[in-house]
Amino acid sequence: MSEEPNKATIIVFSGDMDKVFAAFIIATGCAAAGMDTTLFFTFWGLNAIKTGEPIKAKGFLGKMMGIMNRGGINRLNPSQFSFGGIGRILFSKMMRDKKVASLEELRQTAIDLDVHLLACKMSMDVLEITKEDLIPEVENVAGVATFVKEAANSKIQLFI
Amino acid sequence: MSEEPNKATIIVFSGDMDKVFAAFIIATGCAAAGMDTTLFFTFWGLNAIKTGEPIKAKGFLGKMMGIMNRGGINRLNPSQFSFGGIGRILFSKMMRDKKVASLEELRQTAIDLDVHLLACKMSMDVLEITKEDLIPEVENVAGVATFVKEAANSKIQLFI
Amino acid sequence: MSEEPNKATIIVFSGDMDKVFAAFIIATGCAAAGMDTTLFFTFWGLNAIKTGEPIKAKGFLGKMMGIMNRGGINRLNPSQFSFGGIGRILFSKMMRDKKVASLEELRQTAIDLDVHLLACKMSMDVLEITKEDLIPEVENVAGVATFVKEAANSKIQLFI
Repeated sequence: MSEEPNKATIIVFSGDMDKVFAAFIIATGCAAAGMDTTLFFTFWGLNAIKTGEPIKAKGFLGKMMGIMNRGGINRLNPSQFSFGGIGRILFSKMMRDKKVASLEELRQTAIDLDVHLLACKMSMDVLEITKEDLIPEVENVAGVATFVKEAANSKIQLFI
Repeated sequence: MSEEPNKATIIVFSGDMDKVFAAFIIATGCAAAGMDTTLFFTFWGLNAIKTGEPIKAKGFLGKMMGIMNRGGINRLNPSQFSFGGIGRILFSKMMRDKKVASLEELRQTAIDLDVHLLACKMSMDVLEITKEDLIPEVENVAGVATFVKEAANSKIQLFI
Repeated sequence: MSEEPNKATIIVFSGDMDKVFAAFIIATGCAAAGMDTTLFFTFWGLNAIKTGEPIKAKGFLGKMMGIMNRGGINRLNPSQFSFGGIGRILFSKMMRDKKVASLEELRQTAIDLDVHLLACKMSMDVLEITKEDLIPEVENVAGVATFVKEAANSKIQLFI
């Protein structure tokens, strides 16, 4: 057995519904196994921790991002079979049918299991997302140095 | 040197031809280096371990998945230059020209090198894939707890 | 604390502007934290270390790749909001506005911090890319065995 701390650090770069789903499943799995678990949200992954309230970005791409990603975690589209939003509805239905938790429920479970939610400062700057656009459970806005320190001391590191 | 077991655990989330190819190359590389190697197939990655026989799903998305992903590992499309199936044919040709193994040969090599093939139970439920739809070399249908246990005790963990 | 060497090994499989950006940010973050860091470029990721000069591939897909990926690191498109090249220009502008380094500057910073740039031999063969098509700072053309050895002795391994 390794002497590494019992930690897991996962970068959530993707904002695809299915990948965000995988990230929360793995994170809650790690936390349930007793690991100190951190999700580090960057780029499109930030959509998974937005409130869903309209974004007040001033720049053009910031506004566009706000429009195309409005609605927060319940509006994420899958990476396959998107079909202009129909894929999302179908997947949600299939998950409900199979008694699988919704993304929002999964996120709440992660929070209840003390999974740390961090947001990447640089991506927030580039995409014009502020702390107020994120759910209050986000523990911290952090840079790459924080990620590196966490990841180097983790048994599991993944980029999703 | 770490005291960690000499293991590698790779999640295959993607069903893109090129990413599945990378997953099998890395897995056989790990196994050839003497590592106890596990591939954990989830979501679209399950297409890489299906028999290719028609799927008997009953739900709508399950049926759609079955139709759009018929044919198993030889029908996977690359993530770039897909061109409605032409990309796959071109890539396969280029690989043959360069004497690179096909995906199916690579998968067999992985099996011959005792790489463990696991399938994610929850994804199978959601996508309406049963054990009978998978190749018999799949060792086990497992949940996230199994993945976490394997990954936490591995020197290499990747999400592909 | 683990007895593992203080190393980080990152596979750059994607050629998407935003993912390559993430790879270089993480690599420079690792190097700045004193880690011996390796970027292993494979498949589309090779576009991030090409000179940008026209590729002299002879095969059809090799030529097509050369045309569709001409211009090297400054011509990469983001994975979202590509809009036939407009996304790239918008992102570059937003990054400049926020005083974030360009991809080319980031790559140079990584080189200055002694991040090792390795290129995957098998992908180069399949995609008909030669050593002459790559920037001179690429340290080595290597196979999967090299990657496995590096990754198994690293504190951080990621697949991007």
